Amino acid sequence: MNISVCTTPAEITDDDIRNCIVVVIDVLRSSSTIIAALANGAREVIPVSTPAEAGELASRLDITGSLMGGEREGRQIEGFDLGNSPPQYAEDIVAGKTVFFSSSNGTPAILRVKNANRVIIGGFNNLSTVLEYLLQQRKEIIILCSGRSGRFSLEDFVCAGSMIAGLMGRLKGPDVSFNDAATAAAELYRRNMNLLVDVMRRSEHGKRLMEIGFGKDLSYCAQIDSHNVLPLYVEGKIRGLKQDAGALAETETATA
Amino acid sequence: MNISVCTTPAEITDDDIRNCIVVVIDVLRSSSTIIAALANGAREVIPVSTPAEAGELASRLDITGSLMGGEREGRQIEGFDLGNSPPQYAEDIVAGKTVFFSSSNGTPAILRVKNANRVIIGGFNNLSTVLEYLLQQRKEIIILCSGRSGRFSLEDFVCAGSMIAGLMGRLKGPDVSFNDAATAAAELYRRNMNLLVDVMRRSEHGKRLMEIGFGKDLSYCAQIDSHNVLPLYVEGKIRGLKQDAGALAETETATA
Repeated sequence: MNISVCTTPAEITDDDIRNCIVVVIDVLRSSSTIIAALANGAREVIPVSTPAEAGELASRLDITGSLMGGEREGRQIEGFDLGNSPPQYAEDIVAGKTVFFSSSNGTPAILRVKNANRVIIGGFNNLSTVLEYLLQQRKEIIILCSGRSGRFSLEDFVCAGSMIAGLMGRLKGPDVSFNDAATAAAELYRRNMNLLVDVMRRSEHGKRLMEIGFGKDLSYCAQIDSHNVLPLYVEGKIRGLKQDAGALAETETATA
Repeated sequence: MNISVCTTPAEITDDDIRNCIVVVIDVLRSSSTIIAALANGAREVIPVSTPAEAGELASRLDITGSLMGGEREGRQIEGFDLGNSPPQYAEDIVAGKTVFFSSSNGTPAILRVKNANRVIIGGFNNLSTVLEYLLQQRKEIIILCSGRSGRFSLEDFVCAGSMIAGLMGRLKGPDVSFNDAATAAAELYRRNMNLLVDVMRRSEHGKRLMEIGFGKDLSYCAQIDSHNVLPLYVEGKIRGLKQDAGALAETETATA
């Protein structure tokens, strides 16, 4: 069983993902926003490449009560209802709604791996829920960091490390192997697990968000397990599975 | 002044490199082999994409006493004089010779950045020499990890971290910025600076080399400052500048 971290989408090939669960991470902030939207009752999030595609799809699907959300260069897209700041996706705004969503790094990463066996969206905010799911499935795992403009991003890598650290404790044996990026990410997470907001503040993307007035999002996105939703991307739509530890434990026993 | 680490060649664009010094790292083992060859008196190393190109170029240039070196999947290329194991490049073998060299990861990385303002080859074996050169030049710097088959490699990242840690101590101020990968790499190096052979043994590539009988190369490649040569790639050829701290100090004073 191979467990890998990819530091950017460029590291992935189509062959890699076919039989894998891919966890897409864009801590600042797409994955945190998607988790918030679904945790707060959004019906689904539909990731789209471009703002134009969001509009087109919204009018074609003719879904009552849809919202358009997303950013370019960190700021809300003109004409959109919402940006990419997780606290904007509060229950009274998103409950029952479909959200068409387009962002600079997270959305392309999700669309890049759409042919994987399973695609889930993870962050610090739903860490334990993601781990429970991965342990239950027992498939090859790729943790994909969205990165920033095709480059390594610190907060995604440390978040990937938090997942790897959780898996290393519970998946052992000669048939389990972790790639180099997984080894490095887990080590970096262990060093910084009590300093996650500081990691965000030191990161390039974190600095940019503080500059443009989204400093509060850093501590929001650094909260471990603030939500227990598992965003699952199936046939173009991300829907939330609400997990509870008991149900997962049962399934695990049943399949053991 | 931007100082960046790229975890794989895919992170680099042509725009990035034009005005930069790029340090290419392939610790296991191309950069260590090139350093050894030049430190032991090879006239030059000519990196080539394919074994066929090595042969073709060797006969076209008609250089008396040339050697062909390199590997595929870690093993010496059939018909070549030397593999990619640094101790093979001893003085009595390589002194005065031109070496045509082709390897799986290091050579493509060097050729990828051939249009950079300067390309140098670095590893643990010539760490201080690389640092002295970078501090003297005072240009934008990219530390490029060759990686392994397009993926992150632990030993290259930790070696990049050793360079960044050295630069962080001596380049400070509001005009100096380090990218996220540089921050992460330096942190990982500081944690492992006394465990470099262990890092190699835990790495995917290190494990592969131990399997095929090159375990000794790991400790060779982990030695800090075993050589003081600066391999500089200019117009298709890598030649060694032998540095000494005094000469560098003089140049630094002269340009200050």
